[in-house]
Amino acid sequence: MTSFAPLHNDTFLRACLGQATEHTPVWLMRQAGRYLPEYCATRARAGSFMGLATNVQYATEVTLQPLERYPLDAAILFSDILTVPDAMGLGLSFAQGEGPKFAQVVRDEAAVARLAVPDMDRLRYVFDAVTSIRKALNGRVPLIGFSGSPFTLACYMVEGGGSDDYRHVKTLMYARPDLMHRLLTVNADAVAQYLNAQIDAGAQAVMVFDSWGGVLADGAFQTFSLAYTARVLGQLKRTGADGQVVPRIVFTKGGGLWLSDMAALDCDVLGLDWTVNLGTARRMLTQIAQNATTLIAAGACPASAGGQNDATSRHPKALQGNIDPNVLFAPPEAIRAEVRRVLDSFGRPHSDPAVPGSTHIFNLGHGISQHTPPEHVAHLVDEVHRHSRLLRARSA
Amino acid sequence: MTSFAPLHNDTFLRACLGQATEHTPVWLMRQAGRYLPEYCATRARAGSFMGLATNVQYATEVTLQPLERYPLDAAILFSDILTVPDAMGLGLSFAQGEGPKFAQVVRDEAAVARLAVPDMDRLRYVFDAVTSIRKALNGRVPLIGFSGSPFTLACYMVEGGGSDDYRHVKTLMYARPDLMHRLLTVNADAVAQYLNAQIDAGAQAVMVFDSWGGVLADGAFQTFSLAYTARVLGQLKRTGADGQVVPRIVFTKGGGLWLSDMAALDCDVLGLDWTVNLGTARRMLTQIAQNATTLIAAGACPASAGGQNDATSRHPKALQGNIDPNVLFAPPEAIRAEVRRVLDSFGRPHSDPAVPGSTHIFNLGHGISQHTPPEHVAHLVDEVHRHSRLLRARSA
Repeated sequence: MTSFAPLHNDTFLRACLGQATEHTPVWLMRQAGRYLPEYCATRARAGSFMGLATNVQYATEVTLQPLERYPLDAAILFSDILTVPDAMGLGLSFAQGEGPKFAQVVRDEAAVARLAVPDMDRLRYVFDAVTSIRKALNGRVPLIGFSGSPFTLACYMVEGGGSDDYRHVKTLMYARPDLMHRLLTVNADAVAQYLNAQIDAGAQAVMVFDSWGGVLADGAFQTFSLAYTARVLGQLKRTGADGQVVPRIVFTKGGGLWLSDMAALDCDVLGLDWTVNLGTARRMLTQIAQNATTLIAAGACPASAGGQNDATSRHPKALQGNIDPNVLFAPPEAIRAEVRRVLDSFGRPHSDPAVPGSTHIFNLGHGISQHTPPEHVAHLVDEVHRHSRLLRARSA
Repeated sequence: MTSFAPLHNDTFLRACLGQATEHTPVWLMRQAGRYLPEYCATRARAGSFMGLATNVQYATEVTLQPLERYPLDAAILFSDILTVPDAMGLGLSFAQGEGPKFAQVVRDEAAVARLAVPDMDRLRYVFDAVTSIRKALNGRVPLIGFSGSPFTLACYMVEGGGSDDYRHVKTLMYARPDLMHRLLTVNADAVAQYLNAQIDAGAQAVMVFDSWGGVLADGAFQTFSLAYTARVLGQLKRTGADGQVVPRIVFTKGGGLWLSDMAALDCDVLGLDWTVNLGTARRMLTQIAQNATTLIAAGACPASAGGQNDATSRHPKALQGNIDPNVLFAPPEAIRAEVRRVLDSFGRPHSDPAVPGSTHIFNLGHGISQHTPPEHVAHLVDEVHRHSRLLRARSA
């Protein structure tokens, strides 16, 4: 077993677990990416996107690049969400200037029948990158591993790439729900193995990106996305090789309407996009946690044996998000004002070190745009730290 | 003044106003469109999309085509949502196989300063089409007029066409909110004049399509979309030339999280996409209407003088929607099952003829796909009528 350096900045991990922190931790979805010239330089050396993602040295390099520029509170593995279906043999490629494409699409009974959880050895390059990055971080900030959700992977597998209308995946879902359930079961079990292997390799938190769950109808979301995210979570290791708890984050873009359903997931953090009011979401989750506590106290349902983070835990799930990435195109003062607005909308920070409470991890509501001026990001990160300390000073 | 034939099927209009009906009325967004071979034939004769939309005879022909196939309860003007910015002189065109494009984009102070409410004579072809369609309908079903919302029009005007990320319009909004407010003010006043002229020409209901309001952040939606939809509604005529009340429908795609804000709009119907649970929405709107009634009864706020349909009215707004258009790709029995699920999710139909109540107008949650098999639509419409009558028989 690899041993890693002790963690210097655990603000992010503590906030994930509902613990009070000195400032609101911040990281950015897709923080290692095309808006950074140094990323583009590495990618040019790698020759292609998959050349970048499959090379441990390059993946390590680009993961650390944003940390050199900004005092971010977490790093996230540089990889692609489609590595798992690629390992299933569907043939992933990225045409220049276009999105991902699969050589084979999964739209009929025979194609679904051929699917199986891939040998994790085919994803060894990802796990090696996790270990390499964790070493290179040297305890600076925690490393987040991730995967696409079973439904989000299914979208790409059935559509064969990106989509405007999700016509093929929804046709399969409405016409042959049996095939869709089989496909999602394979995906969920593959994602669980994939995340567990990342945890073993050194990931200190894991995030499930349900990027496309929000395109589903009410009812279909619960049946075809949420249930399979839950199936993933049910199989995940609770601690890493170092014995530390590994927090789990679930983010459904466009999932704000289903927050009360998501509150029942066995995870620590829910990611929110910019359409959701953080204060409203916080009150709802706090109410749900209080109701659960009351039921436990009344003996109506058992307190959970399995850790502190399931649906019956006594503190609300942490919230992660949710500024619109397009704010980063405004001038610095406008960016700072919007950062304050988002922090203020969450409200008074949890500040009691004795008990876990309702916490916030600052992030974008979706990945950063490739057109973002890098110097603008510095203003965002600085204002999160500055204003969130001020809010704590005011609360004290 | 033109006089029109008396209306034979007023189910849709009654449901808009909260009145009990014998069945749940149904119409489909984009019901006149490319999925119909007869539409494609007319379009081929017209030579182009704008050739079709600007020709009164063709617009009349295609508006009536779906009514020949299906027993729909309303017709909707065939037109494009971008006629208003086109009349402002921005130069709308449709390249083959691509979306709309404007020759001029509105991204700076000078371009915004040049904008003005266009002379409605430049949109005469739309109003002529409304009168022509109303005559051709001959009282069969009511005719719905429509416009894009001020914010949705702004998206196209600033982006210059469709967009994946709304980067330019959001940049303008966050960087120069003053310019955005001026642009939206012009749009709102233009849309109000445009809809009033449609009402004068014979439209029996009007709908505001806020197709892109849902891409905004919480807070920004209320400030930059909802407020300007409200500005439109505040200027609309309440009755048509024939003295009949003209119901107003507002649909924000992706706006489900803001339903309680939208409940305060001075309109009769709220459109919902498929992410919203109709039963939950109905309960929320019923609660809001009851609270308003209680406040009126207690003398805490005045009962409205201006018609029955503002925020303080005593019956909840009607709901319109919300099946996923992709359901239409499933086999007939699956379509019928999903139709029943949507009708059942709304719940027991309002059935008291003596008082207005909570009503439902069946629709898709977004426009019908061009790939839809036309014969599948017949199953949807039939099942709405069949099952909604059954629900009424059960309730009685």
